[in-house]
Amino acid sequence: MNIKNYIRDNQSRFLEELFSLIRIPSVSSHASHQADIQQCAERWKHLLEEAGVDYAEILPTTGNPIVFASKMIDPGLPTIMVYGHYDVMPAEPFELWTSPPFEPEIRDEKIYARGADDDKGQSFMHTKAFEYLVKTNQLKSNVKFLLEGEEEIGSPSLDEFCSANTEKLKCDTILVSDTSMLSASTPSITTGLRGLAYWEIEVTVANRDLHSGIFGGAVANPILELTKILAQLKDEEGRITIPHFYNDVEDVSEKERELIAQIPFSEEEYKANLGIKQVFGEVGYSTIERTGIRPALDICGIWGGYTGEGSKTVLPSKAFAKLSARLVPHQKYEKVAQLVEKHILQIAPEYVDVKVRQLHGAESYVCPIESDAYRAAEKAYEKVFGIRPLPIRRGGSIGVVPVFEQILKVKPVLMGFGLESDAIHSPNENFPLDLFEKGIETIVEFYAQYSEIR
Amino acid sequence: MNIKNYIRDNQSRFLEELFSLIRIPSVSSHASHQADIQQCAERWKHLLEEAGVDYAEILPTTGNPIVFASKMIDPGLPTIMVYGHYDVMPAEPFELWTSPPFEPEIRDEKIYARGADDDKGQSFMHTKAFEYLVKTNQLKSNVKFLLEGEEEIGSPSLDEFCSANTEKLKCDTILVSDTSMLSASTPSITTGLRGLAYWEIEVTVANRDLHSGIFGGAVANPILELTKILAQLKDEEGRITIPHFYNDVEDVSEKERELIAQIPFSEEEYKANLGIKQVFGEVGYSTIERTGIRPALDICGIWGGYTGEGSKTVLPSKAFAKLSARLVPHQKYEKVAQLVEKHILQIAPEYVDVKVRQLHGAESYVCPIESDAYRAAEKAYEKVFGIRPLPIRRGGSIGVVPVFEQILKVKPVLMGFGLESDAIHSPNENFPLDLFEKGIETIVEFYAQYSEIR
Repeated sequence: MNIKNYIRDNQSRFLEELFSLIRIPSVSSHASHQADIQQCAERWKHLLEEAGVDYAEILPTTGNPIVFASKMIDPGLPTIMVYGHYDVMPAEPFELWTSPPFEPEIRDEKIYARGADDDKGQSFMHTKAFEYLVKTNQLKSNVKFLLEGEEEIGSPSLDEFCSANTEKLKCDTILVSDTSMLSASTPSITTGLRGLAYWEIEVTVANRDLHSGIFGGAVANPILELTKILAQLKDEEGRITIPHFYNDVEDVSEKERELIAQIPFSEEEYKANLGIKQVFGEVGYSTIERTGIRPALDICGIWGGYTGEGSKTVLPSKAFAKLSARLVPHQKYEKVAQLVEKHILQIAPEYVDVKVRQLHGAESYVCPIESDAYRAAEKAYEKVFGIRPLPIRRGGSIGVVPVFEQILKVKPVLMGFGLESDAIHSPNENFPLDLFEKGIETIVEFYAQYSEIR
Repeated sequence: MNIKNYIRDNQSRFLEELFSLIRIPSVSSHASHQADIQQCAERWKHLLEEAGVDYAEILPTTGNPIVFASKMIDPGLPTIMVYGHYDVMPAEPFELWTSPPFEPEIRDEKIYARGADDDKGQSFMHTKAFEYLVKTNQLKSNVKFLLEGEEEIGSPSLDEFCSANTEKLKCDTILVSDTSMLSASTPSITTGLRGLAYWEIEVTVANRDLHSGIFGGAVANPILELTKILAQLKDEEGRITIPHFYNDVEDVSEKERELIAQIPFSEEEYKANLGIKQVFGEVGYSTIERTGIRPALDICGIWGGYTGEGSKTVLPSKAFAKLSARLVPHQKYEKVAQLVEKHILQIAPEYVDVKVRQLHGAESYVCPIESDAYRAAEKAYEKVFGIRPLPIRRGGSIGVVPVFEQILKVKPVLMGFGLESDAIHSPNENFPLDLFEKGIETIVEFYAQYSEIR
């Protein structure tokens, strides 16, 4: 039975299994979801066992547990390790979801739910590709699965886990499906990821909220002071103004920039999809460059004072912001984190109290396009999508990818099947059913190509 | 029986009656408190009836009802109208209260509760002074009570109510106890109030929250754009930069500024009480001037993006702020409201969508110190506190005060007994018991002095 028929015959079971994972709200950034995290790990273990691994286990870490499974058919054959994550982003604001985030629903041939793409949907495809190869006796590689529960909070425990388990995690290549393609008709493989640094800023003026009539004009306003700090972190041309921020940024060659310019991209479609009036970013770079080869600085959240209905006249005591930077090759997140913290403290006026707290970080990553695994992936996509996938550097960060590179000495291949319209991290996250199926087909094809190339 | 003894003999009943008002969370800015508003009005009506008015009634308006009561003893005698408000500010953030905001508690000789001062505590003193005069047959004026339920949201219905009821509200003077004194040992009477304008600003970029890795750097960040707008509304020397903002600001004479400079004020105590490192405001003006005779601009609230625990990497779709201005004599709030709205829309970059919504406004007010009522109040304070009260312009706004001036042609006297440390509009609002008692004594004394002067 070929894979297309296998998928067709088993489609409702596949979806029901995926939905059973999605229904568990395994949000890693809220401590209140600890039981869901545990339950989701258990569910994954069970699904991996049913798919045909030799064994699956739940391994403790200093944070959320890791699900590990393995099928070793022959030590002489290459070993493929699949990485995925079973935790998800918070689903707030709930009111913007058309259907509840943790009750998956199929509309217009798409699965709508938190985690439908990122990363329950994408990592589940590997399980089903593997199941097919096992059930039809076509598996010609050893396979390992590593599913973590802290990707969305920066994988704080994975470093230590990998260092302590190098033998268990030994493999020839690592597949990660946690990225997106240019479009369904223009497949692409992500060959670069940006790094990440993240801060929380707290500005305090007085020891309590004050009456803005009685004190307004004589006591500094912490929200205004925070906006003054944040507003000067970028100039009018979209450049980050923090001294030395660009020092280590990789200088991309003219030749590579010419290749980037050839990537199909419709600014009109991009704007229409996002509902924006104009694109806006660093002068002198295209949209694809701004999100691929250039660093970015974004305010992810801000709050302070009265935020309820109507008007309350208050001069608040405190104001807060969450700030993140996306980093490119050669920028080290710890160095950047220090740089930004120092700069913010320096530009803050002396009449306010400013605290900067670093929340998490990740290094950037570049995948070589000459490796066996990359070439096998390229051929697999070409066979299933009918067109050779473009290598492209993307703006997201997957903390574990540079960790694998450093500790396991393996450069992961980022076989993503998502689309930008999947709205990951946003309300109404979704994953098209046809990509769910094509993804499984492509992964099956990868196994065949990889065995051949090796 | 003199008033001191009357208070002593009835103290526990007085407090229990006041507490019965405080326990009703009559928050006017939350629609969910509509039933509490109604219940609080009923309770006031009952307490006024018990205090000895001829009749009390609850009158509908286009918004929250007004409690009106009257005792007419002789049309030939002057009529005093007492104004107060039975609505309160929201009590959030609840977690900062030592005791629950709507369960009054006495600690260290102070009543702690939302409304303990503003304005249930202060307006209740008038009811008890009136009760004493009635019960001891000393009343020599006609008395009216007007209690509204929308002061904290800018008294939107009072204008129309006053215009439609000029005959019913006819009086010779109006007393308002909704302000504070310099200190318990330095009594003062507020002779000026700042006006108010209030806006909500909404900045939108994309049609949904976006992944900050995939889009960060290529799509404008609405929080950053909002901070850029807000940060430029004031310069480094604390001046408001909105063109024409200061055009109509009253130029206070050197002589008046010299008098202001003589008001006792300890900057060290002020800073210690508020827990601030430095005072900060418009260059060239003292703290008392900055809050009394100069306008102010404050951001009362800001929100956008992810504001929960930990880190979420998101490029938000929208950001919001609440902005307010305190205005001084001759500045018209409608003109300023237009000015600020226009300026914000003008400085917003064209790649974002900005909406400005005006929420409410009030004119500023100046009370003449030569009037009969002011002089009677001055003598009453002097008799009770042992020291002549200072006339002082304060920063707060009481929307109804200029409305009375315009429609009823009566300039209210602001007989406040609060302290800045009462933390009105803040957690742990409180009102000292000794001022509650001295306030009642002073009001009783006012009636005597006013009859004599007239």
